[in-house]
Amino acid sequence: MNTAFSPLWLGYEPLDTRFTGRAAIRCTSRVDRQCAAVSELITALSAMLPAAELTFGADSASMIFELDIADFLSEEEYTVSADERGASILGGSEAGLLYGVFAYLAAIRAAGGFVRISRRLRPALPLRMLDHWDNADGTIERGYSGSSFFFENGHLIVNERTEMYARLLASVGINACAINNVNVRGEAIKLITEDNLRDLGKLSALLKRWGIALYICVDFSAPMSLGKMRTADPLDINVSYWWQSKARELYSSAPALGGFLVKADSEGQPGPYAYGRDHADGANMLARALKPFGGKVIWRAFVYNCSQDWRDTRTDRACAGYRTFAPLDGHFDGNVILQVKNGPMDFQVREPVHPLFGAMKHTAVAAEFQLAQEYTGQQLHVCCLLPMIKQILAHRTYNGSQNDTVLGTISGAAAVANTGDDFCWTGSELAAANLYGFGRLCFEPTLAAEDILDEWISLTFGHNELVRETLLYILLGSHKAYEDYTAPLGLGWLCKPNHHYGPDPWGYEFDRWGTYNRADRDAVGIDRSMDGTGYAAQYYPPLCDMYSSPETCPDELLLFFCRVPYTHVLHSGKTVIQHIYDSHFEGCEQAEEFARLWDKLEGSIDRRVFDNGKKRFREQLRSAREWRDVINTFFRRLSGIEDEKGRKIY
Amino acid sequence: MNTAFSPLWLGYEPLDTRFTGRAAIRCTSRVDRQCAAVSELITALSAMLPAAELTFGADSASMIFELDIADFLSEEEYTVSADERGASILGGSEAGLLYGVFAYLAAIRAAGGFVRISRRLRPALPLRMLDHWDNADGTIERGYSGSSFFFENGHLIVNERTEMYARLLASVGINACAINNVNVRGEAIKLITEDNLRDLGKLSALLKRWGIALYICVDFSAPMSLGKMRTADPLDINVSYWWQSKARELYSSAPALGGFLVKADSEGQPGPYAYGRDHADGANMLARALKPFGGKVIWRAFVYNCSQDWRDTRTDRACAGYRTFAPLDGHFDGNVILQVKNGPMDFQVREPVHPLFGAMKHTAVAAEFQLAQEYTGQQLHVCCLLPMIKQILAHRTYNGSQNDTVLGTISGAAAVANTGDDFCWTGSELAAANLYGFGRLCFEPTLAAEDILDEWISLTFGHNELVRETLLYILLGSHKAYEDYTAPLGLGWLCKPNHHYGPDPWGYEFDRWGTYNRADRDAVGIDRSMDGTGYAAQYYPPLCDMYSSPETCPDELLLFFCRVPYTHVLHSGKTVIQHIYDSHFEGCEQAEEFARLWDKLEGSIDRRVFDNGKKRFREQLRSAREWRDVINTFFRRLSGIEDEKGRKIY
Repeated sequence: MNTAFSPLWLGYEPLDTRFTGRAAIRCTSRVDRQCAAVSELITALSAMLPAAELTFGADSASMIFELDIADFLSEEEYTVSADERGASILGGSEAGLLYGVFAYLAAIRAAGGFVRISRRLRPALPLRMLDHWDNADGTIERGYSGSSFFFENGHLIVNERTEMYARLLASVGINACAINNVNVRGEAIKLITEDNLRDLGKLSALLKRWGIALYICVDFSAPMSLGKMRTADPLDINVSYWWQSKARELYSSAPALGGFLVKADSEGQPGPYAYGRDHADGANMLARALKPFGGKVIWRAFVYNCSQDWRDTRTDRACAGYRTFAPLDGHFDGNVILQVKNGPMDFQVREPVHPLFGAMKHTAVAAEFQLAQEYTGQQLHVCCLLPMIKQILAHRTYNGSQNDTVLGTISGAAAVANTGDDFCWTGSELAAANLYGFGRLCFEPTLAAEDILDEWISLTFGHNELVRETLLYILLGSHKAYEDYTAPLGLGWLCKPNHHYGPDPWGYEFDRWGTYNRADRDAVGIDRSMDGTGYAAQYYPPLCDMYSSPETCPDELLLFFCRVPYTHVLHSGKTVIQHIYDSHFEGCEQAEEFARLWDKLEGSIDRRVFDNGKKRFREQLRSAREWRDVINTFFRRLSGIEDEKGRKIY
Repeated sequence: MNTAFSPLWLGYEPLDTRFTGRAAIRCTSRVDRQCAAVSELITALSAMLPAAELTFGADSASMIFELDIADFLSEEEYTVSADERGASILGGSEAGLLYGVFAYLAAIRAAGGFVRISRRLRPALPLRMLDHWDNADGTIERGYSGSSFFFENGHLIVNERTEMYARLLASVGINACAINNVNVRGEAIKLITEDNLRDLGKLSALLKRWGIALYICVDFSAPMSLGKMRTADPLDINVSYWWQSKARELYSSAPALGGFLVKADSEGQPGPYAYGRDHADGANMLARALKPFGGKVIWRAFVYNCSQDWRDTRTDRACAGYRTFAPLDGHFDGNVILQVKNGPMDFQVREPVHPLFGAMKHTAVAAEFQLAQEYTGQQLHVCCLLPMIKQILAHRTYNGSQNDTVLGTISGAAAVANTGDDFCWTGSELAAANLYGFGRLCFEPTLAAEDILDEWISLTFGHNELVRETLLYILLGSHKAYEDYTAPLGLGWLCKPNHHYGPDPWGYEFDRWGTYNRADRDAVGIDRSMDGTGYAAQYYPPLCDMYSSPETCPDELLLFFCRVPYTHVLHSGKTVIQHIYDSHFEGCEQAEEFARLWDKLEGSIDRRVFDNGKKRFREQLRSAREWRDVINTFFRRLSGIEDEKGRKIY
């Protein structure tokens, strides 16, 4: 494992102030001086005010930083009231206080000095989670940032990097993480056995101190794989009993454990279907085992037939999540949270919002995003996901609730982590903006993507205006550029099978994954109206009607919902085929522009960061050209229609 | 490693004779009683005449088997003269004698008793070789028959299976084998180091006893990887010296060694190009090192650019072999043999014959075939290659030589082995027909495929007429069926990338391997005439002209050589598109018929053989349907033309 790491946005530097006097931290008796909030404040002030004398509670100090716990605040809420002479920070609990301290530090660093601040805030979403797909052998499924820093050769690791990790997460308000892959295999199955209990206790305690609950992905058939039982039937009394004993054992060593995250009956993972039970039976059985200890079960809604026959045009993978879970609304226990991917397929660069967000009115739901750029350029391409996440959170379900947006519906958000043991944590330095921004959005979803990025840039790269403007331009335009040169009009799965990098427009067309574009010489796209697969009917009016007709369907989702000829005219006034050509040429030009702009940063940013970026922008450009040429060629071969502008298509 | 194995066609059974007397083997002083010919005769007679008393040289025997070496015969030549009372077998050497014994034994087993035989024969091709692609770790590249029986965990294995292997090869006249993968990696690089010399000596001696020369694939850059030198430049005197010492070292431990087989400058393997040298420089340098010991270098002609840009329509992979090697004709030393694949691409089910067979008039050339069914169904589909091999050997190059067929041109043939440690050696019992037949064809290329199969069936399965008829029907029709339901009209590379099993018509279309069909809505195929890539010009007249025009190009190679609209009418009278549909439906019906016929053999053949075949015929049928539907759908989506017969296309 690589033990060197960047502090990312927590690189505290001396402030531009000549302060040399005494600075005092005052904690009331309700605040433990060993708590994370206090230690972070000391770490930061020591670095930011290198000439100051830092003390605890001295009366004669020129700057005073007061910390307290206040009952009038909810648990994770904080208030900050600050000026040139210090700050008073209150939290509803140690976690709230910690968030207050981080907010205060970020504000003065962003401002470049001790400014007047008055803020009261609590997180919008109770659950703000990172899901790591780390395997026990140290590899990471869909990892593009090196190896795991949680596992090595089947063993858990707790070291200085773990502490830094916890600080980074806490600083953006993330309060939960699952450290192992939802596909639980090999040694990972044994994570909940005696051998690992001590390490789990140690890790969960470390994370808890930073307000983070540790979750573990478990094998639904563990009573068999570990317990030597003959069944894992959730309604079997001995199975329940096995899980209850297991929970007792786990919580006695790791009382801070958050609970389990479970992928069941999906892509080969075991689940309740094997016993004729439904997903509520499965989730509730585990939830009841964890309940006495305050634990939760996070249950994934990503269930579909992954052995479909491509000849079968009636089965639609997009329909599967809703059909499985909508009938179970209201059947889940209070400590079950259903984790629903942002769209019905699988983290494509453009998908409609998952209809389950509207359907699950009586179930706690968490939205699942993917920061790991599996389908969005694998951290070799820059693709800032914040505008997309904001758009999804703001999406109205029209399900009759008072606040019918996704944000108003969910009680949490989870994101597949983009981290690894790379020095910069996320493969590309720019990908850290997704990690930072995801946490910030879960906490304060009303923030504009631009404001979050501005914050992140100043905390990470300081206050150089060229750097700021360049990165804002690149990041804010990156998702559209990626969408433009890869997947037109909501058409997904044009990527190479298995590793999902680079174009292969029919690589998934005759396979078993339910991922088809059904392009032919005349038309392209899937009819998902009631005349087609019926998927659009999973939305409430007016969405179901809007999506069902090419006349009303938004351009960016047209080919997801409708089958149209290449000559169909979009709302933009372009034909489908001309849109395909134009967007691919334009997206690629954007990639060129990004690379050009990055090159101009030489000398303005750290050499290592610059070189790493240069390498990646070069690869992005090569790959963008490949996407442009393959997709344009594919559609010209099929349609026979020339580009109006006569550009080179092969 | 699996140590249980079938004797295949050497399963000697008691003959249907009541012979109980004395049978004598008489060897002259020129024949060592320990030699393989004698021991095989004893093994066979003991099993075939269980009630006989077997002696050496007794006068009073009722049956007499005389063995001698005769100077009037060439080394590998034999004569057999036999009747009901025994046989006289002469060989030009122990190897010739051995072939005579095997020929005699096969004849009486095929006849079911001691019949009158009079035969004098010598092998048509001096080099008759098997190339194993076994890796030192025990895996086999493109192996479909289990693991290696030559290597386990980096070590060479010599055991009873090795002896049986040698007997099987000798019985069909194969006289050379390379035991390791031409892609020499990892531990295999060390095969020629001190650690392995003892085992190499042992293995080569065992094989030599059965008339088989052991070849080793070597890393061209071994002076660097093993010798710690800074170059592997073939014209560097120290490099030559390193190889000369290495040869001395190898031959002192393994004097029977045949030599080296080398894949250079191909698909990532090192070679002379790195030093600005050509392939004659590379091959001759190694050949001169081996020459003092009688060793040979077999040098592969499979050299092409495997990082092509699919947008580049001028570069044609098919052209590469000829362009690299034709200018070097006459530059190779006498103990270099150029190993040329049967076609210019890579063992597709249908390719034109490699133009190098016509071009290399002053170079010893061996034709390379692939028994391992990489592109022909991976031993899950039955695909008897003998008719194809015969067709290729009979192909006329028109290069002005007296005998201008491929057979008349080459001095050897090599085949990538289809063997592994499976009980039946070749994954499918039926695939053993390719192993048997390849050896037999190299020895006696005038034999009809049907006669060879008849021989193999009777030696393997005995004399059941239903079995004989069924297997003949299946085997003789298998290659056409496979071609029909997979690759129409010479179009290759419609398979899935990497593993090469199952259809993916554009899986190779936008990739770097030079393997394109360039299908679009109007036309399909590559123009390889002088107006196109120019490949056809690598053939002598009249072939170059014949291949250059759709009017004269044989149907089965049309889309390899010409680009035509889907409505082009073939010599058969069908349009291209209707041919595609028809052949795919018909090929698939053949696969159904094969499965049906196999089922009828239940009870007539060994249970294990039947079950293994049943499983494979079922998979062949599933896969054939997948091929039929994907390829037909692909071309209907592009062409928009319906099947005349209205059959189901998706």
